[in-house]
Amino acid sequence: MARDPKYDILFDPVKIGPKVSPNRFFQTSHCAGIGSERPGTQAMFRGTKAEGGWGVVFTEFCSIHPESDEFPYTSARLWDEGDVRNLGVMCREIHKHGGLSGVQLWYGGVHSPALESREVPRSASPLPSNLLPARTVYAAECDEDDIKAVINMYVLAAKRAMDAGFDLLEVTAGDSTFPVQFLERRYNKRTDKYGGSLENRARVYIEILAALKKACGDQCAITTRYEIDTLQGPHGIEAKDEGIRIVEMVHREGVCDLWAVKIGDYEEWGEDAGSSRFRKSGWMLPFVKGVKGVVSNVPVVVNGRFTSPDDMVNIVRSGIADIIGAARPSIADPFLPRKIQEGRPEDIRECIGCNMCVSKFNQCGLLNCTQNATAMEEYRRGWHPERFIKTSKPYSVLVVGAGPSGMECARVLGERGYDVHLREAEPELGGHLRNVIRYPRLNEWSRVITYRQLQLSKMKNVEVHLGVGKMSADDVLRYGADRVVIATGSHWATNGLGAEGHSPIPGCDAALPTCLTPEQIMAGKEVPGQRVVVLDGDGHFTGISMAELMADRGKDVYLVTNMSDPAEYSQFTLEVQNNKRMMHEKGIKVLRNHWVDNYAGGKLTLFHLYRHGWALTEPEAGHLPRREGTDTLVLDCDALVLVTSRVPNSALFAELKRRKAEWADNDIDDIFRVGDCYTPRQISNAIFDGHRLAREFDSPHPQYPLPWIRERQLWGGETIPALGDQRPRVEV
Amino acid sequence: MARDPKYDILFDPVKIGPKVSPNRFFQTSHCAGIGSERPGTQAMFRGTKAEGGWGVVFTEFCSIHPESDEFPYTSARLWDEGDVRNLGVMCREIHKHGGLSGVQLWYGGVHSPALESREVPRSASPLPSNLLPARTVYAAECDEDDIKAVINMYVLAAKRAMDAGFDLLEVTAGDSTFPVQFLERRYNKRTDKYGGSLENRARVYIEILAALKKACGDQCAITTRYEIDTLQGPHGIEAKDEGIRIVEMVHREGVCDLWAVKIGDYEEWGEDAGSSRFRKSGWMLPFVKGVKGVVSNVPVVVNGRFTSPDDMVNIVRSGIADIIGAARPSIADPFLPRKIQEGRPEDIRECIGCNMCVSKFNQCGLLNCTQNATAMEEYRRGWHPERFIKTSKPYSVLVVGAGPSGMECARVLGERGYDVHLREAEPELGGHLRNVIRYPRLNEWSRVITYRQLQLSKMKNVEVHLGVGKMSADDVLRYGADRVVIATGSHWATNGLGAEGHSPIPGCDAALPTCLTPEQIMAGKEVPGQRVVVLDGDGHFTGISMAELMADRGKDVYLVTNMSDPAEYSQFTLEVQNNKRMMHEKGIKVLRNHWVDNYAGGKLTLFHLYRHGWALTEPEAGHLPRREGTDTLVLDCDALVLVTSRVPNSALFAELKRRKAEWADNDIDDIFRVGDCYTPRQISNAIFDGHRLAREFDSPHPQYPLPWIRERQLWGGETIPALGDQRPRVEV
Repeated sequence: MARDPKYDILFDPVKIGPKVSPNRFFQTSHCAGIGSERPGTQAMFRGTKAEGGWGVVFTEFCSIHPESDEFPYTSARLWDEGDVRNLGVMCREIHKHGGLSGVQLWYGGVHSPALESREVPRSASPLPSNLLPARTVYAAECDEDDIKAVINMYVLAAKRAMDAGFDLLEVTAGDSTFPVQFLERRYNKRTDKYGGSLENRARVYIEILAALKKACGDQCAITTRYEIDTLQGPHGIEAKDEGIRIVEMVHREGVCDLWAVKIGDYEEWGEDAGSSRFRKSGWMLPFVKGVKGVVSNVPVVVNGRFTSPDDMVNIVRSGIADIIGAARPSIADPFLPRKIQEGRPEDIRECIGCNMCVSKFNQCGLLNCTQNATAMEEYRRGWHPERFIKTSKPYSVLVVGAGPSGMECARVLGERGYDVHLREAEPELGGHLRNVIRYPRLNEWSRVITYRQLQLSKMKNVEVHLGVGKMSADDVLRYGADRVVIATGSHWATNGLGAEGHSPIPGCDAALPTCLTPEQIMAGKEVPGQRVVVLDGDGHFTGISMAELMADRGKDVYLVTNMSDPAEYSQFTLEVQNNKRMMHEKGIKVLRNHWVDNYAGGKLTLFHLYRHGWALTEPEAGHLPRREGTDTLVLDCDALVLVTSRVPNSALFAELKRRKAEWADNDIDDIFRVGDCYTPRQISNAIFDGHRLAREFDSPHPQYPLPWIRERQLWGGETIPALGDQRPRVEV
Repeated sequence: MARDPKYDILFDPVKIGPKVSPNRFFQTSHCAGIGSERPGTQAMFRGTKAEGGWGVVFTEFCSIHPESDEFPYTSARLWDEGDVRNLGVMCREIHKHGGLSGVQLWYGGVHSPALESREVPRSASPLPSNLLPARTVYAAECDEDDIKAVINMYVLAAKRAMDAGFDLLEVTAGDSTFPVQFLERRYNKRTDKYGGSLENRARVYIEILAALKKACGDQCAITTRYEIDTLQGPHGIEAKDEGIRIVEMVHREGVCDLWAVKIGDYEEWGEDAGSSRFRKSGWMLPFVKGVKGVVSNVPVVVNGRFTSPDDMVNIVRSGIADIIGAARPSIADPFLPRKIQEGRPEDIRECIGCNMCVSKFNQCGLLNCTQNATAMEEYRRGWHPERFIKTSKPYSVLVVGAGPSGMECARVLGERGYDVHLREAEPELGGHLRNVIRYPRLNEWSRVITYRQLQLSKMKNVEVHLGVGKMSADDVLRYGADRVVIATGSHWATNGLGAEGHSPIPGCDAALPTCLTPEQIMAGKEVPGQRVVVLDGDGHFTGISMAELMADRGKDVYLVTNMSDPAEYSQFTLEVQNNKRMMHEKGIKVLRNHWVDNYAGGKLTLFHLYRHGWALTEPEAGHLPRREGTDTLVLDCDALVLVTSRVPNSALFAELKRRKAEWADNDIDDIFRVGDCYTPRQISNAIFDGHRLAREFDSPHPQYPLPWIRERQLWGGETIPALGDQRPRVEV
């Protein structure tokens, strides 16, 4: 099908310095945990986006020198010839599909943990990092020689980037990096020509761009990612004040071929990569819309988690920007541009803004994506997001349960040509997600369901049966399928069972009117009284959602958790700040490092996890080998919401396994299980699980994954650099 | 020199199953962040210990199967032939020095984050991990087929370990791993033959050992690491109850060739790797001393951060154990046994129990060591802990400042044959450490000083000048040295400057009687009044030490921090639990996520960091783009202790650099700076910095490090496994 002409404008080529992007789709730099260390993963993850129509595709932040060492986090690097070799694979893969490849040149300054290099990063002033608290990360103050040295680092890295094949060389003045540390008064206490006035503070930024322009500007586009508003008010850079004036000053120098603008500094990264719980598509437009008017014919890129081609057209037509930047939408659907191009925008797998991607990076892991189970698997497992190997044995498959895992498994089995029956007890698709999307702020997560619903409906070889009630083992055995996949999900514990103590809690029983599980609340169970305690042993989104829901209903809410911070996982999803702001605004009180001793008569008796003595005493059977603390804290509690742990709905699979002897009698070849009924996990993992089984459905042993490529040094291989190599001299 | 005969017993060979250890020194498994991914680093880090006399040297925990995937943390792995190749290098290096190599076979069960494999770990019961809170890590419940499959994983991994050349195959029943998850009632809710009675709960542990004995026991020793007391009292395993009975039961089966015993589960890891702030050498002996009596002639290993050969002899002679286990002492001094052997035990570089090593692992980084700057650098930088390349240009070198960095720099320069003058303003060596070692609990850190003091005193080419007062730039220029190293350290900010806001705090001035820095307190400045607030923006040991010191003086103490947890870095050093117990016992109150607005008239006005609205408002110059919260909290505060940030003592170097033209006139070849005066860092980094400069003192550009070997995949290299490889079948 041809694309809708109203979207034609999105496919205009755009000149960027000496280069031309084939269209207006631009994957801005985003973290992924791949780096230069996993060249195949990097190449195929980014290359697949170019194949899917993204005209420009960037690396993640890319360290220009060992002084700016992000380890234990993972950045790309351009430290040596080995990195040139490794990142060159990505460039070639992108070029193969007609895209331009970009690299974000990163010198982290004060925010460089440097756990690998153990070197000292330099910055405008000698200060500790506010982003790596407690880790004793400070920067050394640059003198003028140091500034020249750092600029040389940029130039040397840029030249290596050219060698690798990059088309766009981006200086990041975002995420509180080196140039920002000069731009911002709170980081820059200098009294020389690089401090004080805005002209002085902008000098380093301009000098870096000018040096790159001179060294590489004939062959490569010299671009920038720029945070126009740090969201710190007058203490930082404000869009309507210094923010836009810096754009004017830099533009006047003619050293920048493209502006990719954003908001929020490294501290407020969650306002750049805003989760859908707090930010809806386009939230940064009021801050960035003034840039285009300043830079006239230099292209401007804006991000904002855009997934709708209509929104994109509006932005271009209204003159806010020339190019649509995207990070998360390009992860959730690498083929987003192609789907618009092919006249099927309804097939776009829209980002849900859950921030699982960045949450894995922040754990020092590899990105993954709730919506796109193939992200990061393109190379190591050979998975393509849009292509599926047709099976040569088109079994009939019964999938029991249409939650995230069951839906995804049925979808991929369908794509692979199996004859699939997806059967769901309830009258709607979605499983436990149908509750989740009704929690405060989480409605956008419904895209997990709607995307799959549409895809399933398009496949003739997939039948979806809703509202069929729970299937028994007999139902399954007699259904007539060759193979069966059990995807019956999990439920919240009704007795307070959780990681803390691993036991039910005395007095906690969701059969009582005063104890409630999240499912019961969403099903309308009345929450008695005024004083509600949410007991959160889960630490992700459920506990805080229940607390907010209760506050929104006018209750007095206490969030009690065994952890050290409420919704502790939100440190990884970048929601921690806004979670705390929201709780502060709504008066939700928090008690940390506590758990429940018992609940009775409206009194919730809590204990501090560390109430015992630190000293060890002589071991004696039956006694804690410490001074035993017995102090407790009692809260009046009219209703207790139990967010303690989830319990797999494993009974159906267990019974079927016990009756394995009957499988052959019923012409059943094999029975598998996926998702939470095997073990409760994050939604992204449940979806991955269903996807993986379907991809490997004709392997010798489909229940368990096939090996994947592990990108690592194998002993005997070449190393770059080698011992004895000299350090490239950057000092003047 | 010959060894003292009283230590002869430590050098007896010990039979371990079919193997013989050359002596009683045994490096028990310890984390390092190396894994199978860095084969050279692994081989040389561990091999250097064998060279230094450790008779048995283990890997870190070693995953036996992708289901038990520790990523984003780093374990060794025995998943495939690539791992055999990579770990084989370590085995050969250890054998070269006459040692035995051991591997700890690890199946983490419920505590496997699995961010790389995305597989589902199995365990006794379907429960969430209490060790990875908020990360939604659950295990699947094993049925009997699953148990057989997991045992097969152990066997397959053990066979690969034999192929790699390992001599000891250790089953860990420590750190709350799979066998412990069956042993402990709180993890094991089973009602089949693997649950209920102790006999049933011990069945898996015995079956694993028996399977290994059968598969590999002729060629390899089958050993175990076992936590005899989980320190949870009757809720866990107690040494005097089930703990010792399990030893009896396993021993009776004759399947275990060696017992390495420890205390504390994964939750109480800090009681196994006890920091010197809470645990002194040998603290676990009361718990483990009963084992030897049960297992008679089977060797027993005990740990306890032993660094004194006299303590070691006592343990062996008293019949508590046959073998001295060590992790941290072997990191701080890989040559500890050799130094006893050579009759110079005073040269032992004793572990200070600071837990920097594990703190880096816990950040997903690579181990480093305060005392031993060469740890982890043996391969990648080619550094040997005890061998130094003599310089061919024996410059005279003036080192200004004898803090950690200056002492270490002078020591290594001395070892390399330079003519060194180390000059210290104060009458004692140690710099700021002289204060630190007088903080509560930190006296053992004095070993940093005493070790270097002795080494410096032994070298004829090193002069140490104490109490010489501060050197001026003129003093330095006229001193007559060929080269100069500035190591003048740092001091605590006197004005409240810190990472939060990066600005001085109104009303905070250590010139006032009511504001105090840590240095002032240690120098005896009077702390006025009763109500003391410690303002901690540092988050490591200083703030909590000041709080404890004040509490010990009978003050009412509040610890106020911008971070989410008091002494936040202690989550990495494994001290967080005992820190919180200590604070609870001593009544130290905590206020988190707060900072100071101003301090005046005995009133400390604080604000919540997240008091503003979560929603973004229209940008406007001069206004925060949020609903601006103005609520504050006022504490009565008679004395405010400022632990906000450190300021480098950079003036001397800066002046010398400004007067660079005068260097040649004074026959000065070059001037360098190391340690905190360049930028304040952890002590381990300051020492590394001084060490590194001295090692590379004759490189072309010594101020900056030479490149090191980065162990990583280079594109075009071989990969194992390859796509299309089959998974080894473990299921029955």
